[in-house]
Amino acid sequence: MSTPTQRDERFMREALVEAERPGWRTHPNPQVGAVLVKNDQVIARGFHEAPGRAHAEVAALRQLHNPRDAEGAEIFVTLEPCHHTGRTGPCTEVLLESGVSRCIIGHVDPDPRVSGKGIAALREAGIECVVGVLEADSKRLNEAYLKRVLFSLPFVTVKVAVSLDGKIATRARHSRWITGKESREEVHRMRDQHDAILVGTKTLLDDNPELTCRLPEGGRNPLRVVLDRKLRAPLSRKAFAEQDKAPTLVFTGRSSLQLAKGRFEGSGVEVLGASELGGVLDLEEILHQLAARGVTTLMCEGGSELIAGLLGRGLVDRFVSFIAPKIIGGSDAPGPVSGLGFETMAEAAQLDIERVDRFGDDVRIVARYRVDNTLR
Amino acid sequence: MSTPTQRDERFMREALVEAERPGWRTHPNPQVGAVLVKNDQVIARGFHEAPGRAHAEVAALRQLHNPRDAEGAEIFVTLEPCHHTGRTGPCTEVLLESGVSRCIIGHVDPDPRVSGKGIAALREAGIECVVGVLEADSKRLNEAYLKRVLFSLPFVTVKVAVSLDGKIATRARHSRWITGKESREEVHRMRDQHDAILVGTKTLLDDNPELTCRLPEGGRNPLRVVLDRKLRAPLSRKAFAEQDKAPTLVFTGRSSLQLAKGRFEGSGVEVLGASELGGVLDLEEILHQLAARGVTTLMCEGGSELIAGLLGRGLVDRFVSFIAPKIIGGSDAPGPVSGLGFETMAEAAQLDIERVDRFGDDVRIVARYRVDNTLR
Repeated sequence: MSTPTQRDERFMREALVEAERPGWRTHPNPQVGAVLVKNDQVIARGFHEAPGRAHAEVAALRQLHNPRDAEGAEIFVTLEPCHHTGRTGPCTEVLLESGVSRCIIGHVDPDPRVSGKGIAALREAGIECVVGVLEADSKRLNEAYLKRVLFSLPFVTVKVAVSLDGKIATRARHSRWITGKESREEVHRMRDQHDAILVGTKTLLDDNPELTCRLPEGGRNPLRVVLDRKLRAPLSRKAFAEQDKAPTLVFTGRSSLQLAKGRFEGSGVEVLGASELGGVLDLEEILHQLAARGVTTLMCEGGSELIAGLLGRGLVDRFVSFIAPKIIGGSDAPGPVSGLGFETMAEAAQLDIERVDRFGDDVRIVARYRVDNTLR
Repeated sequence: MSTPTQRDERFMREALVEAERPGWRTHPNPQVGAVLVKNDQVIARGFHEAPGRAHAEVAALRQLHNPRDAEGAEIFVTLEPCHHTGRTGPCTEVLLESGVSRCIIGHVDPDPRVSGKGIAALREAGIECVVGVLEADSKRLNEAYLKRVLFSLPFVTVKVAVSLDGKIATRARHSRWITGKESREEVHRMRDQHDAILVGTKTLLDDNPELTCRLPEGGRNPLRVVLDRKLRAPLSRKAFAEQDKAPTLVFTGRSSLQLAKGRFEGSGVEVLGASELGGVLDLEEILHQLAARGVTTLMCEGGSELIAGLLGRGLVDRFVSFIAPKIIGGSDAPGPVSGLGFETMAEAAQLDIERVDRFGDDVRIVARYRVDNTLR
C-alpha cells in the first residue's frame, strides 16, 4: 500500500528519468520530462530534447496512438508547464485541449514569463495541480538553468589536467599531453554538454587549442569565449578559425573595443567590451553578459590566472581535475591555480567530492564548491 | 578434476593467505605462510608473525594436536625453508624431524644464508620438493624484502598530502591540516607498517612532526631518519624527543660528523655520516646504509626537495598522494616535488595507478613506478 504522496513520487521519478535523457544539451532551456498516467499505468512518456524541439508534455502526448486516451489522465511533469509562446506554443493550452484532469509538477519555473502563471491557468480551467513533488531532485537536475534564471550567471565548471604532483606543465611549459586519450575524449564529451568554453589569452598563446568537440560519434560545438584584454592573441590561432563550425566571442577592455573590432573584421569572430578592474577584465560582468546571451553552462579550460580570478570572486560551481599518474616535478613548473592564493589553511576553499572516476590510466575527481545553495 | 599443478596452486593460495596476515611488520624478515596437508585436507596453518617469532613452518606444525599427524603429510610454504640458525633454529631440521614427505615451495629465498641450501638439504634427506608454485604471487608479497636482499636498498614509498590544486601548503607555508583526520589516521597506519620514516631538515623546521605511529589501537613506531647536512635542526624538535619510544637516526655530511656527534651526545639520537654530492647528501648511499641496518620499507614524508632528489635518482618505488578537496591557489604556494623537474612531457616519470581509495573527504591515489622489475 502506498500513500498518495508515495504514488505521486513514483510516477514523478519516471518523469525525472525522461528529463535526464538529453543532459545539458537542452540549454538554454531547462531539462524537463513528462509521463501520462491512466488507471495507474504509464501510457506515454516524453522529454524536451533540445531548443526548438517539442516540450516534454507535447512529446508525451504525441506518443499516444489515440489522442483521446489523454482524457481524464494525469500528467506528471518535472517543471511547471509554460504559459507563453516561444519557439513553441504554450503547453498550458495543449494540456487543456488534451483533456487531462490532474497535473503533478516537480518545481515552479522561475522564468518570469512562467513563474506560477502556468499553474494558475491550469487551475483556473479546473485541472487539479499538485506542485513540488520530488522538488529537490527536479531542481537539482536544473541547477544550471536555475542559476542563470535566478542569478543571471552561468553554472561554471573549471576543468584542469594535472600530474600526480599537481603540475599542469613542465618548467618549459610543455603540457601535451599530461593526460591520456580516454581523459581527453571525456573532455570532448564535456564540451559537447557545455554551452560555452572560456579561456584566457595565455592559453591560446601557449597551447593553441581548437576548443571544439571532436568525438567519434559527433557532438555539439560550444561557443568559444576568449578573454584578451590586451589583444595579444594572433588571428592565426585555431580558436579563431572555422567560425561556421563553432563561433568565437572575444572579450576585451572597453578601451580596446574599437581596435579589436577592426582587427577581427570579416573574420566572423564577435568582439565585446568589458570593464577593467585593477588591470584585469571584470569576470563577473563577463559572466553576466554570457548568461544574458543564454549561456547556462560554462567550462573554463584555463589558464591558471583566469581560474584563480574566477575562484577568487566565488564564480566557480565545480572543479574537475583529471589526474595523470606522472611526476613532472620542479619548483617552477606551474600548477592549475596561480594568482596570490590563500595565506592560511583556514582560508582555503573547501569543496565536496561529488565523484571519482577512472579514465584510462588517469583519475578524475569532480568536486563541488560548498555554497549556501538557495536553489535546493 | 584438477591437474597436479592446479592442486598444488590451490593449497599454495591458502599458504599465501597466511603469509599476508602480518603485513610488512615481519620486516626485516620476509612474509611467509605455510599449510600442512594430509589426505587432501589442510590439517594446520601458520605464518611468520614478527622477527623473533616462530617461522611459518614451525607455527603450522605447532597447530597439530598430535605431532605424529605430520608424518607423511605435505607442507606448502610460500618461501624456501631456512637452513641456518638465526633467532630461531633451521626450519629444514624441524621439517625432517616432523616426518613430512613432500615440500611445495613458492619461491627460493635469495638470502645468501639460504639461497637453495634449504631445498638441497630437504631433497638430500629424501623429501620431495616442488619449487616455484605461484612464484609470482609469493614474490610480489615479498617485493620489499627481495629488493633489500637483492639490491641492498629499501622499498621506498613517497607520501604526500596535497590540495586539489596540487599544493602542499599555502604561500605562507601553512600546511596544517590539508587532509582530514581519516587520511591522517591512515598515515599512522602506514607508519605502523614501515620500518623507517625519512624526512629532510626543512620539514623538521617547518612542521616539527613527531613522526611516531599514533593509532587508537596502538602500533609500531618506525625508526625516524632525518637528513641534516648542515645541522640546522634544533635539538628541541619533536623528532629528537622520546628516544625510548622511537629511535632517531641523523645523517649529516662526513665533514660535520664529529660536530654532530658532540651536538647529539647523551640525547639518544644516533648520528651517521654520508658522502656529499654537489651540495647534497648522497641519497643512494644513505639508503644502502639503511638497508644494511635491516630497513626494508622506508616512507619519505617530505620535504619537496628531498622527494625531488629521491625521484631524480630513481630511488622511489611507490608514490602515495592524499588529495583533499580544497583549493589553496597561488603561484608561490609549494607543490610536493620541487627541484628542477623535467623539461619536456616526454621525460616526465610515468607511473601506474595501483589503487584509488576514499578516506573521509579525501581521495588517496597509490601509484607505482614503472620499472623493468627483475623481481617478478
